[in-house]
Amino acid sequence: MNAPTPLRQIARPLPEAFVTALRTRFGEQLSTAAAVREHHGRDESAYPPMPPDAVVFARSTDDVAALVELAALHRVPVIPYGVGSSLEGHLLAIEGGVSVDLSQLNQVLAVNSEDLTVTVQAGVTRKQLNDEIKHTGLFFPIDPGADATIGGMAATRASGTNAVRYGTMRENVLGLTVVTAEGKVIRTSRRAKKSSAGYDLTRVFVGAEGTLGIITEATLRLYPQPEAIAAAICSFPSVQAAVATTIATIQMGVPIARCELLDALTVKAVNLRDKLGLPESPLLLFEFHGTPASVEEQTATVQDLARDHGGHDFEWATTPEDRTRLWSARHNAYFACLQLKPGSRSCTTDVCVPISRLAECIDETIKDTEASSLPSPILGHVGDGNFHCAILVDPSNAAEMEEAERLNRRIVERALRMDGTCTGEHGVGMHKMDFLVDEHGADAVELMARIKRAFDPLNILNPGKVLRL
Amino acid sequence: MNAPTPLRQIARPLPEAFVTALRTRFGEQLSTAAAVREHHGRDESAYPPMPPDAVVFARSTDDVAALVELAALHRVPVIPYGVGSSLEGHLLAIEGGVSVDLSQLNQVLAVNSEDLTVTVQAGVTRKQLNDEIKHTGLFFPIDPGADATIGGMAATRASGTNAVRYGTMRENVLGLTVVTAEGKVIRTSRRAKKSSAGYDLTRVFVGAEGTLGIITEATLRLYPQPEAIAAAICSFPSVQAAVATTIATIQMGVPIARCELLDALTVKAVNLRDKLGLPESPLLLFEFHGTPASVEEQTATVQDLARDHGGHDFEWATTPEDRTRLWSARHNAYFACLQLKPGSRSCTTDVCVPISRLAECIDETIKDTEASSLPSPILGHVGDGNFHCAILVDPSNAAEMEEAERLNRRIVERALRMDGTCTGEHGVGMHKMDFLVDEHGADAVELMARIKRAFDPLNILNPGKVLRL
Repeated sequence: MNAPTPLRQIARPLPEAFVTALRTRFGEQLSTAAAVREHHGRDESAYPPMPPDAVVFARSTDDVAALVELAALHRVPVIPYGVGSSLEGHLLAIEGGVSVDLSQLNQVLAVNSEDLTVTVQAGVTRKQLNDEIKHTGLFFPIDPGADATIGGMAATRASGTNAVRYGTMRENVLGLTVVTAEGKVIRTSRRAKKSSAGYDLTRVFVGAEGTLGIITEATLRLYPQPEAIAAAICSFPSVQAAVATTIATIQMGVPIARCELLDALTVKAVNLRDKLGLPESPLLLFEFHGTPASVEEQTATVQDLARDHGGHDFEWATTPEDRTRLWSARHNAYFACLQLKPGSRSCTTDVCVPISRLAECIDETIKDTEASSLPSPILGHVGDGNFHCAILVDPSNAAEMEEAERLNRRIVERALRMDGTCTGEHGVGMHKMDFLVDEHGADAVELMARIKRAFDPLNILNPGKVLRL
Repeated sequence: MNAPTPLRQIARPLPEAFVTALRTRFGEQLSTAAAVREHHGRDESAYPPMPPDAVVFARSTDDVAALVELAALHRVPVIPYGVGSSLEGHLLAIEGGVSVDLSQLNQVLAVNSEDLTVTVQAGVTRKQLNDEIKHTGLFFPIDPGADATIGGMAATRASGTNAVRYGTMRENVLGLTVVTAEGKVIRTSRRAKKSSAGYDLTRVFVGAEGTLGIITEATLRLYPQPEAIAAAICSFPSVQAAVATTIATIQMGVPIARCELLDALTVKAVNLRDKLGLPESPLLLFEFHGTPASVEEQTATVQDLARDHGGHDFEWATTPEDRTRLWSARHNAYFACLQLKPGSRSCTTDVCVPISRLAECIDETIKDTEASSLPSPILGHVGDGNFHCAILVDPSNAAEMEEAERLNRRIVERALRMDGTCTGEHGVGMHKMDFLVDEHGADAVELMARIKRAFDPLNILNPGKVLRL
């Protein structure tokens, strides 16, 4: 397993004829202003910014198709951009080119409430979507924390806090509109709930991080808003006790909606930022969805399990306001952690292991991070076996960056030994390309590369991400 | 939309050097006996048998890899065979070649009950699997009716009666061991519950019908056996009323485990075969899984909904024996229907539409079939919008076969107009290749073809299925 190759942006000025053609086609939708390019050349990773040479603000699928067609003609990279919340350098212009900003593709196109589906443009964010469909009594559950765009979430196969109940983008995207590397527009699937009609193109594009095509629309599964919701927190004497409670909950078949772990350091960070006054020991946050009777039954079961494992009493968030405060704290935990070390960025690990190995995996990881000079709070979607270390670094300090990579590498190696994955939900980007071979083997990665070459023979779609070709 | 091209097997004798090499490598695992070849050249479709030139009984993944390597060398087709329960000619040797029988790959390799996963060889059947894991308190829910192999179910993206609650093979395969067209052995995924590590090879092979690689092992999701199970039947005055009840149930978020429709003709067939004495009007079969309290709540809700739509009283199957009798009748409905017309085969349609269009779709379909000379009982997984017409034909009667194709074509065209799919769960095989372009468009199908050419450049893996190249 090798360290990620040091990254340097490859400067390659745009062909003049291409810029002229862009200007003709896109007028003021095109920007080459430094501030705009800079903004589109960074994400939430610790990478230095790598601005694109130009930004096109798309207003339609046709805009995206026209851009890609021109880019193919001139062999210029095209990188899709949503809100910039990715964590592995997905949208950095490592080989230059054009960033296509999809944030103006922000229409909810069709709510089919009888079918529990919705079709949206790729730039719609998850909060916007849920606001716009609130009146239907339905909701879209996938919640990666950040108010990401649906296109970005599909492209990274995102999940988050309630995947334990509702699945990930893999399970919840029914179909996509995609612009291919030739600038053609395809639809990957009809709106039927299931289909065996040919290869699963939807799942080929979900998680492909814009390297196989650019997602411009998505049809998603919706769920009835639960009749009753309850949320609670429970402190535990150890991470092990919290994880053991989680495992027992899953094995009992309790359809828990969220089950989140915060280690003591993360609780401390959250307390500092959000003044929550939580006891600074490992904490589980639970959420239960269902009918009132079912929620009551679920909570009773989980309370018993928690008590069996030394958990303190549940503290309930009964009102919607209390719940919002609690989950806002969880969602802001990432930013709270950054404040533990002012001026820092986070190298965020993202391993996911079979849940039977989770306690052991977190335990050994804590030993690693405690032996390190870098603060590394841990939080995770433990119901899925997925957890994050936010390794806090000063990105200008080479020794710290190296130490963060060393820690990340050890954590990934451990997860792979435990039959887990190097990334549960953040994706590969530029950061985990070298781990792919360790995880899948060279022959499997070669099949992935064949898909890439077959779909994008000129390598213009988000080049330098996911795979080394 | 064209009629399927008339099919004729292409005879191409196996190269002598290949047969010699097979004999050396496989000894008595190789058979060229007419009866064995005949058996491996037919499925449950109405196609005439198309026997392979030889059959290899594989005992290991290595056997499959060795066979494919030899086949690649000599450019001979290889067709995976499970139990022969496919419905669209998937395993017929249209271009000759070798059938690889996987039924001796029948080991349950690892039950990881803490993780709710199991790893099995491809030839394990679903009933065998559930028998072998019964003691763990877990079960594998996917149930296409036939006691199919897990490999075959993965290859056709199968689902069946309780997909409405538990999803399809798409959602329930965690990872696969696959022999590639070069005879290499890959593993598509680790055992983590979710992953964003590169392209979703698992979902590329699920539903590829053996045209991209041969599945030899699968890791599957398991579920805790429900604490309580209840099953009931309810008769309705019309198909519309039954479907309306289904829609309301789904929209209320009732986590119903099964919801099956039998039209009056199917009920008649089942009565004839299984002496059930059911009222011969449209019927819904329900199954509820959960805690005792939750099952009680679900059944109360659904009973109310059924009553609102003119459904008669529920008739309960309370004992496990009653339930088995009921579901056996459902599972045998296909064979019961065949007996409506002695000596017939069934052209089984398999459309799936958004549930909001289901009543209309079935309604128009019944008008079609009632106007036809062919008996066509309807049954379906209506909770998913998926239903089947078993169009009963004498396969030696060309006029009947033509009429069946005409009906099937009308049903597919209607489903596509309603944003549905030509196949919800049976797959494409040789029968639906021409519908793929209508359903997905030429550009999307071209991307599928690129995957095929990239994975199997010599076109030796189950050629003549899924795509016209």
